[in-house]
Amino acid sequence: MRKEINIGIVGAQFMGRAHSNGWYDVAQFYDLPFKPVMRAACDINPASEKDFARRMGWLSFESSWETMVNRSDIDVIDICTPNNSHMPIAVAAARAGKHVICEKPAAMNAGEALQMAEAAEKAGVKNMIAYNYRRVPAIALAKKMISEGKLGQIHHFNAVYYQDWLVDPDFPWVWRHDSRVAGSGAHGDMNAHTVDLARFLVGELGSVCGDERVFISSRKISGTDRSGVVTADDSTSFLARFTNGASGNFVATRFATGKKNFLRLEIFGSRGSLVFNLERLNELEYYSRDDKSGEQGFRNILITENEHPYIRKWWPPGHIIGWEHTFIHEIGDFLMAIANNEKITPDFSDGYKCQLVLDAVLESSESRKWIDI
Amino acid sequence: MRKEINIGIVGAQFMGRAHSNGWYDVAQFYDLPFKPVMRAACDINPASEKDFARRMGWLSFESSWETMVNRSDIDVIDICTPNNSHMPIAVAAARAGKHVICEKPAAMNAGEALQMAEAAEKAGVKNMIAYNYRRVPAIALAKKMISEGKLGQIHHFNAVYYQDWLVDPDFPWVWRHDSRVAGSGAHGDMNAHTVDLARFLVGELGSVCGDERVFISSRKISGTDRSGVVTADDSTSFLARFTNGASGNFVATRFATGKKNFLRLEIFGSRGSLVFNLERLNELEYYSRDDKSGEQGFRNILITENEHPYIRKWWPPGHIIGWEHTFIHEIGDFLMAIANNEKITPDFSDGYKCQLVLDAVLESSESRKWIDI
Amino acid sequence: MRKEINIGIVGAQFMGRAHSNGWYDVAQFYDLPFKPVMRAACDINPASEKDFARRMGWLSFESSWETMVNRSDIDVIDICTPNNSHMPIAVAAARAGKHVICEKPAAMNAGEALQMAEAAEKAGVKNMIAYNYRRVPAIALAKKMISEGKLGQIHHFNAVYYQDWLVDPDFPWVWRHDSRVAGSGAHGDMNAHTVDLARFLVGELGSVCGDERVFISSRKISGTDRSGVVTADDSTSFLARFTNGASGNFVATRFATGKKNFLRLEIFGSRGSLVFNLERLNELEYYSRDDKSGEQGFRNILITENEHPYIRKWWPPGHIIGWEHTFIHEIGDFLMAIANNEKITPDFSDGYKCQLVLDAVLESSESRKWIDI
Amino acid sequence: MRKEINIGIVGAQFMGRAHSNGWYDVAQFYDLPFKPVMRAACDINPASEKDFARRMGWLSFESSWETMVNRSDIDVIDICTPNNSHMPIAVAAARAGKHVICEKPAAMNAGEALQMAEAAEKAGVKNMIAYNYRRVPAIALAKKMISEGKLGQIHHFNAVYYQDWLVDPDFPWVWRHDSRVAGSGAHGDMNAHTVDLARFLVGELGSVCGDERVFISSRKISGTDRSGVVTADDSTSFLARFTNGASGNFVATRFATGKKNFLRLEIFGSRGSLVFNLERLNELEYYSRDDKSGEQGFRNILITENEHPYIRKWWPPGHIIGWEHTFIHEIGDFLMAIANNEKITPDFSDGYKCQLVLDAVLESSESRKWIDI
Repeated sequence: MRKEINIGIVGAQFMGRAHSNGWYDVAQFYDLPFKPVMRAACDINPASEKDFARRMGWLSFESSWETMVNRSDIDVIDICTPNNSHMPIAVAAARAGKHVICEKPAAMNAGEALQMAEAAEKAGVKNMIAYNYRRVPAIALAKKMISEGKLGQIHHFNAVYYQDWLVDPDFPWVWRHDSRVAGSGAHGDMNAHTVDLARFLVGELGSVCGDERVFISSRKISGTDRSGVVTADDSTSFLARFTNGASGNFVATRFATGKKNFLRLEIFGSRGSLVFNLERLNELEYYSRDDKSGEQGFRNILITENEHPYIRKWWPPGHIIGWEHTFIHEIGDFLMAIANNEKITPDFSDGYKCQLVLDAVLESSESRKWIDI
Repeated sequence: MRKEINIGIVGAQFMGRAHSNGWYDVAQFYDLPFKPVMRAACDINPASEKDFARRMGWLSFESSWETMVNRSDIDVIDICTPNNSHMPIAVAAARAGKHVICEKPAAMNAGEALQMAEAAEKAGVKNMIAYNYRRVPAIALAKKMISEGKLGQIHHFNAVYYQDWLVDPDFPWVWRHDSRVAGSGAHGDMNAHTVDLARFLVGELGSVCGDERVFISSRKISGTDRSGVVTADDSTSFLARFTNGASGNFVATRFATGKKNFLRLEIFGSRGSLVFNLERLNELEYYSRDDKSGEQGFRNILITENEHPYIRKWWPPGHIIGWEHTFIHEIGDFLMAIANNEKITPDFSDGYKCQLVLDAVLESSESRKWIDI
Repeated sequence: MRKEINIGIVGAQFMGRAHSNGWYDVAQFYDLPFKPVMRAACDINPASEKDFARRMGWLSFESSWETMVNRSDIDVIDICTPNNSHMPIAVAAARAGKHVICEKPAAMNAGEALQMAEAAEKAGVKNMIAYNYRRVPAIALAKKMISEGKLGQIHHFNAVYYQDWLVDPDFPWVWRHDSRVAGSGAHGDMNAHTVDLARFLVGELGSVCGDERVFISSRKISGTDRSGVVTADDSTSFLARFTNGASGNFVATRFATGKKNFLRLEIFGSRGSLVFNLERLNELEYYSRDDKSGEQGFRNILITENEHPYIRKWWPPGHIIGWEHTFIHEIGDFLMAIANNEKITPDFSDGYKCQLVLDAVLESSESRKWIDI
Repeated sequence: MRKEINIGIVGAQFMGRAHSNGWYDVAQFYDLPFKPVMRAACDINPASEKDFARRMGWLSFESSWETMVNRSDIDVIDICTPNNSHMPIAVAAARAGKHVICEKPAAMNAGEALQMAEAAEKAGVKNMIAYNYRRVPAIALAKKMISEGKLGQIHHFNAVYYQDWLVDPDFPWVWRHDSRVAGSGAHGDMNAHTVDLARFLVGELGSVCGDERVFISSRKISGTDRSGVVTADDSTSFLARFTNGASGNFVATRFATGKKNFLRLEIFGSRGSLVFNLERLNELEYYSRDDKSGEQGFRNILITENEHPYIRKWWPPGHIIGWEHTFIHEIGDFLMAIANNEKITPDFSDGYKCQLVLDAVLESSESRKWIDI
């Protein structure tokens, strides 16, 4: 009979649900050498947590993460809490010898992220930041094509991440508007993803110049007569230069009316180009200068073939997968890395390097000039 | 504690896997009054079945469907076998008092489908044909909009279902090429879906005129020197008139080079229009003549909002779902219909009516003239 | 100094304007060995004709086409009148030794079209039916690619031509609704184009089965209390088999709410596929099975490169052209054929062959069965 | 009989051809109170000029622009020369009392542009910078919709202008690579357009921060063994803040492999959004928060209806126009402004204000910090 590996999760909101589904389904699609057991869930709100645990398949629940990270029957800690608790939980879990997956961004700032990376390194545990978009099959294919030289030298990496849920002025003040809790707004939530993808696909960023914006500076607090001050950014754009010479352009905004979760990458190289859009995540557009003259054009590759990354685990050609499948890939790959004692990325160190970029953008936005990283 | 409902599945191939995932995940996303238990799986190939059962979460396995449909610890039978066994299994299961879900098309022909409908009716069991595309959120929204009169009187229902896996002449002969086993080819597999959607969205078809085609008439049998004769259609197109006056046009083909699972509906009415494509199943295009003059256009609705059918069970706006989620919807709705003792569609009677249309098309293709249904 | 060639046009409505612009502009973009002179215009309505002639650059006007076709100072007659006058004008012009361009469809029926072809043949004059879509650069490229074998053996030619201007029930009765004047409705106007393109790109059609529809059977006559009976079709669909074995599917309708001039071709072959849409006529989608596995997809070729047909006459890459440019191509090619005494297509004989198909579809729609051509 | 207005053009290259076609065709589509006469053309290369004049319809030619701007039989001067001669020609023409159209950008820098504006103002002549994209019907509609408040308060104006003709390292050195002649590269050519559109659609820019890039620093000079140094930018991106609070993001590059003339605007406001792409210039995407909840989406408006700006001059719905039609609109509107003695925009003053922004971006790129305008 197969050995078991025991998981504990902290945080029962949106990300907790998505990760839980990943833990629950992973063995249906990955050939694993052990059986993942959803041992315990933990949330600060015991009521919602209990319902969450029952619904999502967790066998027990804990009211304190401190207790959970020290339970001897748990091998892996999955952190799905708000950003300001990532570091303490991750560090404690690593010290307790647990493997750790942590939601993105790594932490509130680079300093915290570095502590996480050092703790994990010291403890010798597997560690991962859940930058799940690296495991969208189309992105994994993009990585492969770029590594093979299909794009040649990359000149441009232009990324936008558009949502629109804050454009409604009646949307109430929540903790996400408070930069002390959230770290930042659109920037830490959305640019975090695109910076991670930039590092994954193109390389390290050398310098940045950003512009942080708050369009609606105070919002009503639900069920009260009071308003809260918005200190987290509604939008942050920045220019960048990569160390390899590529030029970067990033926009993250929650005011892109009509765009719901529109993360578009446009990558232009000397031999070819790629375009990706998260709202159509089963597709990748590819242009090759190697195609016959007169027949060149952006090809829309439907990423549902057995040849494509991750797809063999799923369905026949043309049967698209959804956003949450990325968590199954992430969790499956993480478990395989544990099983084979292999390095897995993006790890805490990647989380730290990403955070350095995010921090530099905010500093640049303050000082109104370019910042070297 | 919640009562359990026990499921048995027959058939461990592609559809068996997709249904299994549905049974496995449904309770994470539906609030059910009982707990679905994946009691037993059955396949003619015991080896693959055993691995399948273990992987997908079935608690036991059976080597004979006859045994399984009579097990007293099973409440629901899910039929995922080839078409020529649907009728005997479904009839036996209904007689044994089991609720039955059966893969599409209902059966080999209308006569068989009628037997299924009569057996289920007599037994008083819940019954459903797994025309899962009715439960794509975009299709469910289309149904709602049409019911509300958003399209007015419908003039055109134009449906294509394009795949390309047979265009390769080296693709070997398999049982699907034998019409005695498969019933038909593209027609029974693909037009079955679009005819069901036509009935769901527009109404009954009154007359049809079809053209069945075989483009490659014999194929090599793998691992042999022999070839098999292709008797199942590679493609079937047909014209139709609906009883309400709408005009229908249907194409199903496995020779649409480059199209993997491209099911496109174009529905034109007196007030508005809808366009849908299964390869982008999270989107629905809608044109309204009620929009302001000069600002009319096809809107691409991204079907990921809480207001949209089924989406509240899933993720925030912009987080797309995949093809297999339709099975969770289908299974969830089926379980709720059992719990509430309500009618559920598409039932075996719908399967029968759909089959009448499919049969008429083949008859018309033989006689080279229109056939009334 | 260059010799002149003198043009006379009959018909001053929409098509008259578009052709006039073609005659006016052609020498700016074609290197012609003679100068086209817009000698005379003719319309049954002298008032509108005079304004038309002045505006569009015609040097004089005639009130009778009989006079014009016999004027010794005219070399080319361009026929832009309603369909029921094409034949008499074309025959008279050919007999008078004029080269003739005639708007599509050739005539009211195949019999008339044959008379035109015979008269032109006998007179030895250049003759052309203005199926201008053959000279959309993307279509010309499609032709070239098909001729080179890029698609291999063609299995499917699926064409729709969607407009929506009749869906409004208040649109008044006009002569186009009277099949005695118009020949037919959507069929003769729109299927005429797609049948011509089918013949151009795939080959001759062998048999057809059609369905002619009138959705609104009577309409108000403007400025009166009376209604007119609609005898010309609102929509005609048909299935077809090409003599080379390809399968055809055609829909033409003026009830496709939201589609303005949407002519879509989907051509699927054994090696590749092409998709075209007239509303985006500067683009051609191409899928090739010869592309590397895992990187195959429909490429959207922007047809604005020097390598593309006709484009060298126009602008640098990315500067799109419009619908009316097809007339410049048509007229330029026609003038070059005169200059070089070469055959030009589509000629009256093509017009006749196209008409044979159109007539067979109508006959089939009457008899409710397939008709061989 | 109608009075004549006499035109002289300077510059016989790409832009000279496009403008010539505009002068030639304008009277076919505009009801003008006078007849435009293409009196004289002028180019520094007499040979190409003569062929150009004959081909495009100019009645005579001049070898010196100084002579031409002083000819008494000329009323309007159209300047289509390289940027470094705009100012002297425009100033001389204005002083000679001619109305002046000048290609964009206005001049080499804001100082020159201001001289042009002052000279035109003093002379009281009509003056225009040929920012022709303002007169793309879709852009004119966007302007109308924004003016009506359809977008509410604008938060984001994101513009990219992508071409790829310099990505080929074998593309030779030409004068456009020399910033002393060209002013700048992608920036002055392409950002000039998007900055003009930003001012037109959103308002004045208050501060900018840019990044000018040269990816290939030297190129072979054709027919020689020598290389030339590239001093004009291959790409320039910049961030901006508008004085009304909107956030701007601009990218112009000639290294966007696969994009030929792809100018995309994404404008997000508090009530709605617009998206435009020059390669599909007959379309405008519009999202409105006023649409019914659950039915919101980006509508693709096909800009070919009579209700749309400029379209009534052209063809029935669905018959698209091309890039060069913008020149007919520009020239037609300019002539009407002369006829009615009305102000026309964008005038030299707009050209100056646009140049201020362009200059500030370059200054910012040098100093690596934000610059107020």
